[in-house]
Amino acid sequence: MLPSSLKAIFNAAKLPADDRPDEYQSAIIYCEGNFTRIDGKTANGLVRSSERYRILAVIDSTMAGQDAGSALGTASAGIPVVKDLDAALAISEQRPDVLIFGLAPLSGLMSSADRAVVIAAINQGVSVVSGLHEFLADDQEIAAAALASGAALYDIRRPRPTKHLRMFDGAIGEVDCIRIAVLGTDGAIGKRTTSTLLTQALNDAGIRTVMVGTGQTGLMQGAAYGVALDAIPAQFGVGELEGAVLAAYEGERPDVIVIEGQGALSHPAYLSSTVVLRASRPQAVIMQHAPARLMLSDYPNVPMPSPLSEIKLIELFGDTKVIGVAINHENMTQAEVLAATVRYEAELGIPATDALWHEPSALVAMVTAAFPTLLARPQTAIA
Amino acid sequence: MLPSSLKAIFNAAKLPADDRPDEYQSAIIYCEGNFTRIDGKTANGLVRSSERYRILAVIDSTMAGQDAGSALGTASAGIPVVKDLDAALAISEQRPDVLIFGLAPLSGLMSSADRAVVIAAINQGVSVVSGLHEFLADDQEIAAAALASGAALYDIRRPRPTKHLRMFDGAIGEVDCIRIAVLGTDGAIGKRTTSTLLTQALNDAGIRTVMVGTGQTGLMQGAAYGVALDAIPAQFGVGELEGAVLAAYEGERPDVIVIEGQGALSHPAYLSSTVVLRASRPQAVIMQHAPARLMLSDYPNVPMPSPLSEIKLIELFGDTKVIGVAINHENMTQAEVLAATVRYEAELGIPATDALWHEPSALVAMVTAAFPTLLARPQTAIA
Repeated sequence: MLPSSLKAIFNAAKLPADDRPDEYQSAIIYCEGNFTRIDGKTANGLVRSSERYRILAVIDSTMAGQDAGSALGTASAGIPVVKDLDAALAISEQRPDVLIFGLAPLSGLMSSADRAVVIAAINQGVSVVSGLHEFLADDQEIAAAALASGAALYDIRRPRPTKHLRMFDGAIGEVDCIRIAVLGTDGAIGKRTTSTLLTQALNDAGIRTVMVGTGQTGLMQGAAYGVALDAIPAQFGVGELEGAVLAAYEGERPDVIVIEGQGALSHPAYLSSTVVLRASRPQAVIMQHAPARLMLSDYPNVPMPSPLSEIKLIELFGDTKVIGVAINHENMTQAEVLAATVRYEAELGIPATDALWHEPSALVAMVTAAFPTLLARPQTAIA
Repeated sequence: MLPSSLKAIFNAAKLPADDRPDEYQSAIIYCEGNFTRIDGKTANGLVRSSERYRILAVIDSTMAGQDAGSALGTASAGIPVVKDLDAALAISEQRPDVLIFGLAPLSGLMSSADRAVVIAAINQGVSVVSGLHEFLADDQEIAAAALASGAALYDIRRPRPTKHLRMFDGAIGEVDCIRIAVLGTDGAIGKRTTSTLLTQALNDAGIRTVMVGTGQTGLMQGAAYGVALDAIPAQFGVGELEGAVLAAYEGERPDVIVIEGQGALSHPAYLSSTVVLRASRPQAVIMQHAPARLMLSDYPNVPMPSPLSEIKLIELFGDTKVIGVAINHENMTQAEVLAATVRYEAELGIPATDALWHEPSALVAMVTAAFPTLLARPQTAIA
């Protein structure tokens, strides 16, 4: 848990919930039994940061009564955790625009209890946003309920029709800026959070940076560029992500593009990082690792890889260079994180930092040490 | 081209077209402008070997009048190449059961000329088998034509509905037999052909072997086990292929499972080999390479990898051992192939053979050298 003396550096930069502009949609998040946990990562991410939704409440009966930000170990977010759908709907006089399905289960599927809540929300006219692999609009009962109540169904992970998907064409070779991929040693280990913090820190330092998201949570949070990589048929993954990187380059002409990784290159089941490396051809990689995590989060019988073995694999497979280690401090004290930082810097010969606990300047220094020319450029951040 | 003195070793083991049993469906193959070429690989494969269809004719106006087998450089197949759909329909008094779309274009999509032929066949009541990424049944005009004429539409590449797809669960760890993946240095380089020949040669040597297919051509040819890997959403690829390997093991209890690879581990766009390695966890890999191919087949500006660099990548990423090189002799003489064989054996320290030109026993020796215990097992091939 995060000591209370540490400031939340994530929500601090955002507008407080009540001051957000009207174009934000109001949202309640369903995360029964899993808020703050790994399978609740969509909810956790949206409470930490959302450019698209104004979050009114999180539904998780096991944590009802807490503040969602405090429960995550950051500052109070002014977002209550409530016990059920009715309590969430009672928070505001106006009906929320959407219910966000905030669970990201391994299977990508809903339980029957989850399903009942989704249908109850739809019956009350609340639209539903889902990042599940099981598409709401393909479910006859859910589709019929939405038709009856006028609620909309948003399946974030549904790729475009196959005939419109993009094949890799090598255009990435013309993207004339620094590309940094944030990969990791496991899934659900903080790659998206580090990507977001890194993008913010570089912009704050006057280095024009844009992030390309590759997962449904990042896209729900409002990433302007990206694709939900794990839902795309394998044939088109590299081309679709190449297209997103190209769009980010053409849209922003940034100094740096940060690409969110997925899974791990050594992972037994989640191989989207291979697509990230081939599609974005990063000159550099920052690798996220959780020193106290012993087994893979979704495969508790499989040991975590060592940072060194993962770095070797990334550098050979991606023909790139790992320029730093970002530490996830789960189940660690601050002293333990500091010790790990010193140890990795000595053993691996590259800088290490905790993106949440340490100063953002450490992330910036990691990048400028690898790319000193960035310091010589005209300094104007992307708003 | 193959010297005429060499026997076709592929069709020889098959029944001649006229003697095939009645349960084979009769088929004509559409391959305009591309028969014998790389984008015609579905047609080329089906003329070489089909357990499911009796091939009546191949449509390609640029090669009309030739025998399809001779055109491929193997023995006469008794299958004429004809100029158009009408000529193909005139071959037999009975209407063929199906038209197979035998082109495998990079985009996975039909041209408008291709589309007109497909619709003309449907209008005559001929069902259509397609391995395209663009699904026939999703095309309103094609679906309407099929409904009107009673023709069926078979979209081989369409995966099962997402909610029925299988997640990786580690059951591959219980598959207690030797697993050999056939990978390669490029796409369309002969991995499926070598996989088929290897499976046949091991069975002929009394080593019970079953093949797991991973591409649409292998599945059309009648592979009993497999999935069309490049059409599956990335999240489920490893689990779906693990399930196919498991089914092959439980269904046949073989000594060896041969897994067909796709693309190349170093490929800029086709990464299904990463899924093959994670899903099947092969103890050994045979690597297909074309010494005279200088640039990637679908990306003519990208040089081919060297065999040594590909082997290093396979062994690190897959935690496995490359036990031999299978040579694709395109644009090479027999003397050049022999020289390449000697050179690779010296440079790489592993055996090399041309699976089509050399004796099948060379493939068997490659496997038994790596797994000597196979020679001590009771010898009964899978029929």
